[in-house]
Amino acid sequence: MKAVRTIAELREEIRSLKAAKDVGTVGLVPTMGYLHEGHASLIRAAKEKTGVVVVSIFVNPIQFGPGEDFETYPRDEQRDLAAAENAGADLVFLPTVDTMYPQPTKTKIAVSEVTSGLCGASRPGHFDGVTTVVGKLFNIVQPDYAFFGMKDAQQVAVIQQMVYDLNFNVTIVPCPIVREEDGLALSSRNVYLSPEERTQALVLSRSLREAKEAVESGRIRTAGEAKRFLTTRISESPLAVIDYVEVAAFPALAPLADGEPVIEHNESVLMALAVKFGRTRLIDNCLLHSKGE
Amino acid sequence: MKAVRTIAELREEIRSLKAAKDVGTVGLVPTMGYLHEGHASLIRAAKEKTGVVVVSIFVNPIQFGPGEDFETYPRDEQRDLAAAENAGADLVFLPTVDTMYPQPTKTKIAVSEVTSGLCGASRPGHFDGVTTVVGKLFNIVQPDYAFFGMKDAQQVAVIQQMVYDLNFNVTIVPCPIVREEDGLALSSRNVYLSPEERTQALVLSRSLREAKEAVESGRIRTAGEAKRFLTTRISESPLAVIDYVEVAAFPALAPLADGEPVIEHNESVLMALAVKFGRTRLIDNCLLHSKGE
Repeated sequence: MKAVRTIAELREEIRSLKAAKDVGTVGLVPTMGYLHEGHASLIRAAKEKTGVVVVSIFVNPIQFGPGEDFETYPRDEQRDLAAAENAGADLVFLPTVDTMYPQPTKTKIAVSEVTSGLCGASRPGHFDGVTTVVGKLFNIVQPDYAFFGMKDAQQVAVIQQMVYDLNFNVTIVPCPIVREEDGLALSSRNVYLSPEERTQALVLSRSLREAKEAVESGRIRTAGEAKRFLTTRISESPLAVIDYVEVAAFPALAPLADGEPVIEHNESVLMALAVKFGRTRLIDNCLLHSKGE
Repeated sequence: MKAVRTIAELREEIRSLKAAKDVGTVGLVPTMGYLHEGHASLIRAAKEKTGVVVVSIFVNPIQFGPGEDFETYPRDEQRDLAAAENAGADLVFLPTVDTMYPQPTKTKIAVSEVTSGLCGASRPGHFDGVTTVVGKLFNIVQPDYAFFGMKDAQQVAVIQQMVYDLNFNVTIVPCPIVREEDGLALSSRNVYLSPEERTQALVLSRSLREAKEAVESGRIRTAGEAKRFLTTRISESPLAVIDYVEVAAFPALAPLADGEPVIEHNESVLMALAVKFGRTRLIDNCLLHSKGE
C-alpha cells in the first residue's frame, strides 16, 4: 500500500496500478479518516469488487457549518494508514486543505429536494459541501465504483442523485451499517461521548430495532405512529436531545404524511433520526424495504 | 464520421476509436448546433490536437430563461452533420432532451463571482445551465481537451473556473472569434437579423476595433473612457439597444473601476458588450492582453 498526498501523484499511481493489474477497475472509498470497522467494511467491499482500491482521507472543511466540529474532528493518520492497509487498500490519498482548495472554491455542486429534509434541514449547506468534494474526488480518482455506508443514508441518496443527474461514470455501492455488539452504530464521533452518554446513546439503535419489529408485527402501521413511537422511546433517555425523527420514502426522501402506511408503501421507507447527547450529534436509521424489493 | 444519439453508444464508440487510434486523446467541441465557420474552426483545432474528435449538438433547455429563444433557436441537423464531417469530426453526439434529462435535474453545478456580471447579470440562471450541461458532457465524453470560442468569453472563464475548482481532468482550449468579412462575429443567432439590423449590427465589431486602436494609441486610457467611447459609438446606430457595455479583468471578470487604466493593467482586460437589434441579442468582445503576456 502507498500513501500519496498530491493529485498528480495519485493519478500517476492509479494509472500504473491499473496498467499492472488484470482487473483494471478502480474502487473509491471516500472518508474523513479516524477509520473504524465501518470504514474497513467499505474497503473490504471495494477489495472484493475492484482491482485498485483507493481510500481518501480528508476532513472536508466546506461540509461543516459554523460552530460545528471541523477543528476538533478526530484525526489519527498513523492508525488510519494501518487500518486501510489491513482492510486491503492499494492507495491512500491524504490531501491537505490547500491541495483540495488551493483557492476558496467558486464552484459548488448542489442537489435540491433530496437534501431538503433530515440532516439537510439541520445542517444548511452541509450536502453542498459533500457533493462538491465527492464530485472533486470522482474527477481526481475516476473510479468505476464508489462505496458509502448506509449510516449516512441521506448522503447515499444525495450522491446517487448527483451521479444520475451529472452522468458520472461511476456505480455507487451502498454498504450496510456496522454496529458495536451492543447496537451503537459505528461513528468517528463516538469518541466524543462520555461513558454515561455512550450508555444512553444505545436508545437510538434499540428504539429503531423495536420500531422495525412493531412495523413487521403490525403494531405500527403509519408514519405518524412510527415517529411517535421513536420520539417517545428516545425521550425516555434523559440526556437525549432530539434533532429530528423522520419517516421518508427512500431514496427520494420525501417525508411520509402522518397517515401514510409504512409497510405497504411501494417505495422503501427510511426511519431516520439525529439526536444530541451533550455536544455530540449522532445519527442512525433503519430501512424498511418495499414488498416489491 | 458517425452520428450517435445515446450515451451508451457514444461511450462505446469513443472506447473503440481510442483503442483503434495511435493518438488516443479525445477532444470535445460542445455546441448547440446550427454550425457556422466559428464552430468549424473549433473542430479543426480539435482535429489538430487530439486523436478522437467528438462534436456534441444539443440545444440545452436549462440555460435558456423564460421568454428567451429556446423553442425558436435555429436547428438544421443534416447541414450540421455535413459541416462537422467536413471540419474533421469523428463522432457527432445528438442527444434528445430526454436523453440528457430523463428527469428534471435536481443537481446543478453553479459558479459564483465569475458569473455575476456581464451576461450572468442579464440572464439569471444561464451559466448554471451551461456549467451543468458542460459538466454532464465532460462526464459522458471524458475528453482530454475541450474547445470553446472566445466570442462567449465569459463562458470560457466560467468553464475554466469550474474545471479548476472541480478538478475535471480536461484542458480547456479557448479559440479566437471568427468574423464575417465585414466584421460581424459569427453566431447562430445572426439568422434572426433583418437586412437593416444586420447592417447596423456591424457597429459592434467596428466600435470594439476602434476602441482597441484608441487604447493602443493612448487616446483611451481608463475603463471609464473605454465604456463611454463604446456606449457613444453604439448609440449612434438607431436600432441598437444596449444591454451592457463592460470593461473587466479577464478571466476573473471583476469589473474595472472607471478610473482604472486598461493597458498597464497586470491582468488581461476584456471589453465586452451585449446589444439587442430588434428581438435579437448579440454579444461581442475584445481582449486586451496585459504587458506580461
